[in-house]
Amino acid sequence: MSKPLIIQTDFGTVDGAVCAMYGVAYGVSPELTITDLTHEIPQYNIWEASYRLIQTVKYWPEGSVFVSVVDPGVGSTRRSVVAETVTGQFIVTPDNGTLTHVKRMCGIKSARVIDESVNRLPNSGESYTFHGRDIYAYTGARLAAGIITFEQVGPVVDVDSVIELPVVEAVYDGEKVSGTIDVLDVRFGSLWTNISRELFLQLGVSHGQRVEISIENETRTLYKNILMYAKSFADVYVGEPLVYVNSLDCMAVAINQGSFAKAYNIGTGTTWRIAMRKAPKIVYED
Amino acid sequence: MSKPLIIQTDFGTVDGAVCAMYGVAYGVSPELTITDLTHEIPQYNIWEASYRLIQTVKYWPEGSVFVSVVDPGVGSTRRSVVAETVTGQFIVTPDNGTLTHVKRMCGIKSARVIDESVNRLPNSGESYTFHGRDIYAYTGARLAAGIITFEQVGPVVDVDSVIELPVVEAVYDGEKVSGTIDVLDVRFGSLWTNISRELFLQLGVSHGQRVEISIENETRTLYKNILMYAKSFADVYVGEPLVYVNSLDCMAVAINQGSFAKAYNIGTGTTWRIAMRKAPKIVYED
Amino acid sequence: MSKPLIIQTDFGTVDGAVCAMYGVAYGVSPELTITDLTHEIPQYNIWEASYRLIQTVKYWPEGSVFVSVVDPGVGSTRRSVVAETVTGQFIVTPDNGTLTHVKRMCGIKSARVIDESVNRLPNSGESYTFHGRDIYAYTGARLAAGIITFEQVGPVVDVDSVIELPVVEAVYDGEKVSGTIDVLDVRFGSLWTNISRELFLQLGVSHGQRVEISIENETRTLYKNILMYAKSFADVYVGEPLVYVNSLDCMAVAINQGSFAKAYNIGTGTTWRIAMRKAPKIVYED
Repeated sequence: MSKPLIIQTDFGTVDGAVCAMYGVAYGVSPELTITDLTHEIPQYNIWEASYRLIQTVKYWPEGSVFVSVVDPGVGSTRRSVVAETVTGQFIVTPDNGTLTHVKRMCGIKSARVIDESVNRLPNSGESYTFHGRDIYAYTGARLAAGIITFEQVGPVVDVDSVIELPVVEAVYDGEKVSGTIDVLDVRFGSLWTNISRELFLQLGVSHGQRVEISIENETRTLYKNILMYAKSFADVYVGEPLVYVNSLDCMAVAINQGSFAKAYNIGTGTTWRIAMRKAPKIVYED
Repeated sequence: MSKPLIIQTDFGTVDGAVCAMYGVAYGVSPELTITDLTHEIPQYNIWEASYRLIQTVKYWPEGSVFVSVVDPGVGSTRRSVVAETVTGQFIVTPDNGTLTHVKRMCGIKSARVIDESVNRLPNSGESYTFHGRDIYAYTGARLAAGIITFEQVGPVVDVDSVIELPVVEAVYDGEKVSGTIDVLDVRFGSLWTNISRELFLQLGVSHGQRVEISIENETRTLYKNILMYAKSFADVYVGEPLVYVNSLDCMAVAINQGSFAKAYNIGTGTTWRIAMRKAPKIVYED
Repeated sequence: MSKPLIIQTDFGTVDGAVCAMYGVAYGVSPELTITDLTHEIPQYNIWEASYRLIQTVKYWPEGSVFVSVVDPGVGSTRRSVVAETVTGQFIVTPDNGTLTHVKRMCGIKSARVIDESVNRLPNSGESYTFHGRDIYAYTGARLAAGIITFEQVGPVVDVDSVIELPVVEAVYDGEKVSGTIDVLDVRFGSLWTNISRELFLQLGVSHGQRVEISIENETRTLYKNILMYAKSFADVYVGEPLVYVNSLDCMAVAINQGSFAKAYNIGTGTTWRIAMRKAPKIVYED
């Protein structure tokens, strides 16, 4: 039986590009089950493509095949690879940093370079601009359908050689935890940080207690305030900010039914730093 | 054989949240057929989630399982329920008003509270913010795949106790029918009212005859004009307004190839009132 | 075994219209595999619907059934047809020009008018506005599921009678090739022309050589410059414009990682003319 095939791109769904990929995949095997991760990755944004993979890969059954095509270097010499994660899913992608978070946070068991002399849609040789359809969808579909094995993708490459984008590690200095704002929960405007729950808990903070949050971008402090560490949004008032554990088991900051990102013009990336410390207890004297 | 699983949320499709729900569902059973209703419900807009269900549920085969997650109260004490409609579909949802229109316009045969001690994704206990994935998608998938029966969802609750948002009834006063503008056909800018075709026909109006429409919002009249009651858009000129029967068998108002909602800044909700009466026959003297 | 069913509309995915079509189709047969082409065709834009079909149809297996509903004339006397392409796919659509590009660039083998007395969702007779659900999705699903044959759709019609929108042919006058800008690769802002690679190559230009491009709209020249004819985007600098062969084997113009359409306010349609000639060799004297 075939394995699920999941496709992610920065193509949008306004034109026919994604549908052509689906057609190629169903042409490989009409039995496939194909699903979208998202096609709304901002154009050429490899970082976000990498993040959306770590947000989803581990929720899929072993053997599931992800195809991710955010590929500013299409037609260049960048490699095309298939990675097998430690949790047993496969990811078919240009080797351009798309595997950064999966490699760091989940782990890659092994990787292979796609041998395009065999793993390419027949008669697609004149097109140099649509590898998403001609190589990635085609190879992903053949792998998911069991027509080729992982070994038949192409030669093994050293996992260490899989390209990673620069990342800043979150740290605990005995007083505060510091990290970066990695990505937004776009629709709800929450900030997702690279500070794991485990690291955060070294502050000795429990649910319902207060945390001082500061956010800086290069030279400027954009936010400094004291928030509740809440179990969920329902623990604070509508319009009140909170710190909570997101679905990746990392710390996030939000406004209940509002957008934190819009309220304070917060962006994402390694220059967006966030620090959290246990708030001092405030005693109001009479 | 499994039953269709249909998912609706206010998560958008820009990040990985919906894909994680799909992964959990396919992890329950790779045989499932999963489809989207929409993920573009405006954030926290329970009313619109309720309306999109009544717009679609009855077109699906008996036994189909809808999962609807518009859940401003995630983490609060609101119940999680599964409702069985009179027409034989199931709806898995927080009990927060999402079932309003289905309960009133289609009917709920019975309802059960989800017993989260058994119906929750294993090892998801630390996440308090993503019940859509951990409880609703998981339970919906198990129900659609036939792994649990409706009885195994959890204890029965009184259908009367299922929460309804406040609704204004459409009425006929012997001269005009009055109701509310419930929702927009967003892309085409048509107004969908709560006035049923049956009620409207008490005006004694036939296709091709003219109807006087007035629209008010709280204190102000925003529109008053005479329109044709048309069988379809093709009965009027491009740019001409019309009254017609929409796909829910209720009365709707539109501009042929234009947007009525944008043209007159019309909104939706119980404060947006619309009245229709048979237009007086106009005789132009020489 | 059933054949893939692919749906295209201008309905968007914000409300329940597309989901109701899916429900009707799965009601016909729960075994179907249903996919979207796109639902973001600009409202009533038959030209773009036609183009998205030619962009995708040939990548789908023989027997695949496309349903395309961009239907400004719903309820009028326009015919509903099913066309069989030369490459073996079926397209269910109002006969309003949606088949223009498929008829010209791929070829229609035969066409039949839908006999609505048998090919219409039972008990949908009161709705005159949602043929997408009641006729097109229903008939497409029955054809894809093998419940009806192509012959059972309805009577044959002359392929010549299938309606085509006006098209301007690309030409080579011995010195330059001239054509129109047919459509945008929306998300990346590339211009897709109707100039085939074959016609372009009559200029005697090879990869890496330079081409003079001029773009005019009715009376005004909007762009005139010399660009590289590149194999792929990676052959030019980021921000540099290029001419290349798109995934339809036609000539396209883009800016590497920028939007050509936005940069120069370029639109699409038969009034948007583009010409390409081999650039004169420039010698810089000392």
